[in-house]
Amino acid sequence: MKNISFSSVTLTSGYLFDKQELNRKTTIQAVYDRFSDTGRIRAFDFAYVEGVSDPAQKPHIFWDSDVAKWMEGAAYILKKHPTPALEAKIDALVEKIRKHQCEDGYFNIYFTVIDPKGRFAGRANHELYCAGHLMEAAIAYADATGKREFLDCMEKYADYINKVFLVEKSAAFSTPGHQEIELALIKMYRFTGKKKYLDMAEYFIRARGRSVENDDYYNQSHLPVEEQTEAVGHSVRAMYLYTGMAMLAEETGDVALFRVCKTLWEDTVFRKMYVTGGLGSTNIGEAFTSAFDLPNDTAYAETCAGIGLMLFSQAMLAHENHARYADAIERVLYNGVLSGLSLDGTAFFYENPLEINRSEQFQTIHGNRRLPITQRVACFSCSCCPPNVNRLLPALGSYLYGVDGETLFVNQFVSSTLDADGMTCTQETTYPNGNTVHIRAAGAKKIAVRIPAWCESFTINREYTMSNGYAVIENDGEAIEVAFDMTPRTVFADPRVIRDANRLCVMRGPIVYCAEGIDNGENLHRFVLPVNMEAKTVFDETFGLYTLEIPCLKRIEFAENELYSSRPPKTEKTTIKLIPYHCFANRGESDMLVWLCGDYS
Amino acid sequence: MKNISFSSVTLTSGYLFDKQELNRKTTIQAVYDRFSDTGRIRAFDFAYVEGVSDPAQKPHIFWDSDVAKWMEGAAYILKKHPTPALEAKIDALVEKIRKHQCEDGYFNIYFTVIDPKGRFAGRANHELYCAGHLMEAAIAYADATGKREFLDCMEKYADYINKVFLVEKSAAFSTPGHQEIELALIKMYRFTGKKKYLDMAEYFIRARGRSVENDDYYNQSHLPVEEQTEAVGHSVRAMYLYTGMAMLAEETGDVALFRVCKTLWEDTVFRKMYVTGGLGSTNIGEAFTSAFDLPNDTAYAETCAGIGLMLFSQAMLAHENHARYADAIERVLYNGVLSGLSLDGTAFFYENPLEINRSEQFQTIHGNRRLPITQRVACFSCSCCPPNVNRLLPALGSYLYGVDGETLFVNQFVSSTLDADGMTCTQETTYPNGNTVHIRAAGAKKIAVRIPAWCESFTINREYTMSNGYAVIENDGEAIEVAFDMTPRTVFADPRVIRDANRLCVMRGPIVYCAEGIDNGENLHRFVLPVNMEAKTVFDETFGLYTLEIPCLKRIEFAENELYSSRPPKTEKTTIKLIPYHCFANRGESDMLVWLCGDYS
Repeated sequence: MKNISFSSVTLTSGYLFDKQELNRKTTIQAVYDRFSDTGRIRAFDFAYVEGVSDPAQKPHIFWDSDVAKWMEGAAYILKKHPTPALEAKIDALVEKIRKHQCEDGYFNIYFTVIDPKGRFAGRANHELYCAGHLMEAAIAYADATGKREFLDCMEKYADYINKVFLVEKSAAFSTPGHQEIELALIKMYRFTGKKKYLDMAEYFIRARGRSVENDDYYNQSHLPVEEQTEAVGHSVRAMYLYTGMAMLAEETGDVALFRVCKTLWEDTVFRKMYVTGGLGSTNIGEAFTSAFDLPNDTAYAETCAGIGLMLFSQAMLAHENHARYADAIERVLYNGVLSGLSLDGTAFFYENPLEINRSEQFQTIHGNRRLPITQRVACFSCSCCPPNVNRLLPALGSYLYGVDGETLFVNQFVSSTLDADGMTCTQETTYPNGNTVHIRAAGAKKIAVRIPAWCESFTINREYTMSNGYAVIENDGEAIEVAFDMTPRTVFADPRVIRDANRLCVMRGPIVYCAEGIDNGENLHRFVLPVNMEAKTVFDETFGLYTLEIPCLKRIEFAENELYSSRPPKTEKTTIKLIPYHCFANRGESDMLVWLCGDYS
Repeated sequence: MKNISFSSVTLTSGYLFDKQELNRKTTIQAVYDRFSDTGRIRAFDFAYVEGVSDPAQKPHIFWDSDVAKWMEGAAYILKKHPTPALEAKIDALVEKIRKHQCEDGYFNIYFTVIDPKGRFAGRANHELYCAGHLMEAAIAYADATGKREFLDCMEKYADYINKVFLVEKSAAFSTPGHQEIELALIKMYRFTGKKKYLDMAEYFIRARGRSVENDDYYNQSHLPVEEQTEAVGHSVRAMYLYTGMAMLAEETGDVALFRVCKTLWEDTVFRKMYVTGGLGSTNIGEAFTSAFDLPNDTAYAETCAGIGLMLFSQAMLAHENHARYADAIERVLYNGVLSGLSLDGTAFFYENPLEINRSEQFQTIHGNRRLPITQRVACFSCSCCPPNVNRLLPALGSYLYGVDGETLFVNQFVSSTLDADGMTCTQETTYPNGNTVHIRAAGAKKIAVRIPAWCESFTINREYTMSNGYAVIENDGEAIEVAFDMTPRTVFADPRVIRDANRLCVMRGPIVYCAEGIDNGENLHRFVLPVNMEAKTVFDETFGLYTLEIPCLKRIEFAENELYSSRPPKTEKTTIKLIPYHCFANRGESDMLVWLCGDYS
């Protein structure tokens, strides 16, 4: 299907609309302020002097990308909500970019101000990664405002990159250590129509793994991309590469490359994905590990990797009208991505664990065992995730609809209006709280409504046929009503997932739930939930979502001085309160657990 | 009770007798050979020259202690089994010690040969630790052979230490960074009758935590010992210190200090001990963490810490005739200590995890997540555990009996003879395979037989009264028969142990069982054992112990491309084979699991 851009889609109300508004009104400014505090904005003055300037504000190799993602997010906001103050901030940055871009087109703060001799000397130095994010920002800004200056700068930079990497091959490496520029160049091609950018993207993708470069598996350079079959290495790098590959396959019609993408997507989603949609099982290399290795407490599940899974899945929808890609987008958005943002919109998780035991957060004199942080923070030294949230939320509309011929695909359920390519559509729903979606469309012969894989029972007030997870309905212009069974349910992991053995988690619709210590006291492992639990739903004003109250058992501690016993612990009847996973850690320090002990009998 | 030394006790047959013989015939030589290969024996020539000698054989600061523990073990063997070749090896080492001991009495290879200026300059440098082990070896050798030369050297060294630390206080620190000398000095006092050694021990114990020295918690220097209430820091250091404290309290009659020891023992055994008796929850600092934090896969549970728990518990029996101390000795000996030695007697575990998942033993380009080793090795760079096994096994007789007035205490069940202080005793049993123990004693009015805490049902062919876990019987000189119910049983951890939640393990008598992949295939978490399982016992010739075959369920993996499901995994009926935990990793690389998924219903 052809994806319909957020520029033709407007969210009108509901939970995701509220998040979008939170980003517009709070988060975009909060991230800018932290980027100002930390010197990231000032860095664009190219004025840092070693030994003179504040060393805390010394530019870092990936700062350009942090600010670029913020600019991209701000531009997406401008596209729908003209905001002069915000536009002025971008203009000021663009002016500095214009002023300080090198004559030859090169643009990178660190490698101009701090280490000019290091230009394109180190594959791990993120220059092409930064370039890619700047290109994405430039496209977004040109699209939102019609102002070409930023894009002109980036076209000039792209031409320079073309010269260095494709023509002269004078760089110290042939492909980027951190992928990103591939998908950015394809966006450049799509926006400008200039095929040279597609050729560059194809070069960077196809050259990968064909020569020995550093850190093979870590950045997916262990094999030519056509030969890759497993999601490996740094999860964000993987997602950005695979997204670029899927976009390239779409543009070139390369069926073999699409098949590779499909294999990699299946390996990611069916063998290496947390129930929250989080990716990356270890902090070591922020990376994938082996199939079914999904430890909960030491999960990495970086917010950026979750956003990367959305990008990759979205790119896959262009190849195959299969609801599973939109299922994955829904799963990670409502769980492993939104968990990255605090309810007040000002603080962030970089990693999104599925379990926190504060009793294990001890220190030893020889250092910490690596454990998750328990509270979101305003900024990180490597602060990639906050501006990635900034750019995701205003463009959420891009994930809602697709079109293939005369069929309109409804992929995500959000109150919204669509007006594109002679098609209009109005969607009304309080999803994911409410279970009913009303869709009225014109200009489409058929409407294909995604039936989420999590939903085992649904009704539609029309005849329909099922196709690849979509209910396909002949459109008569009248409102279609789809109702999903959203009874809270227990969910189980494949028995090969060691860390979820004998456990279960609870979901309602697309929302994964968790228990927090603040509601349930310490040691959440003592609660035992039956497979056939019955949950009472209670609307929570703070979260804007339902919480769950579930009758269950709690294991009673042994007598003093009895650590092990031949008798199982006694239990008491109690009720556990579960909250949406992505809302955890918003009410102070607390233990947290997604995979609860299950009574499978 | 007064402990009865192994010099009065002879093991005559059975499982532990076989281990003792294995050590005498194989392990003592194997460790010597590895210590020869690695330069540890040659180091006693004091001939290493920087830039000339093989740098791989450069003496290390703790090598003296490695060899000293080997000498102590060899001496214990000599005590019962005169072996000229073995005695000659020790004599050769003693001769070198005599030759190279400094004029002033100081003896340390590293700080004489490599870094003379470093003498007593660094608290973390293990000099007093090495000294303590040399003293223990010297006592053992004098006791076994009547030869005084080694002990004379160590008395001279002790006097020098007294001068430097107690009189002149000229060392750079006041108490050792690694405890050991405290208990060794009390042994020196007991063997020589010279009170100055007791005074030195008391000094080192009481001075601890009274001045700021390095690494507070790590080596239990965070508080004066009288104020300590929790087992913290490096587990071996803790056990050696607590043992010294308990011995000091015995010698001085310090009731308050005994109460401290009791508190520390209870914190260790009832809140920080693996079901195997292993101590130390993290490799970071080889240390205790917080109460009930007992991760299985990353357990440290160092073999030396297990032996340390035996020493500490034994010292506690001198204060309180309570079977729980002997219970702890039995638990750790049969599980977390014997696991440190391969069945062939030549290879060792330093750490003794309770879970191995080889699918998690992946590597990333940025290094390994820290995971247990899966096979025993012949020698470690820090090879403290192998000679600790060498010295434990020949002295096992010391753990069997105690005497208090006219009561003979039978603490451990091993076929053996006792002849001490006008008492004789013969014990006949095939324990821990057989469940029956026959005891015939003379010279004791009462016989107190430990009824293990694991045993819920037993018979004795006499009248008895229970006292602190002992069945106390009037001795009529006829054979007493005690029979324990050894039906394999499921065992549960206190619900506060997060990592054992919803799990169970299986024990038979004192033996903890585990599942290995070699018997049961991959992913041992897929097996589910009912609380009321029934195990078939099958004698295994290789192990010399029973294995268990238990009907249970195995969870079946989901369909391809279904990682999460609203339906619990289906199960199939199967039989799991369990082997004694301490025998794991003797048949090649394999997954291993102690705490299996439990069906508690």
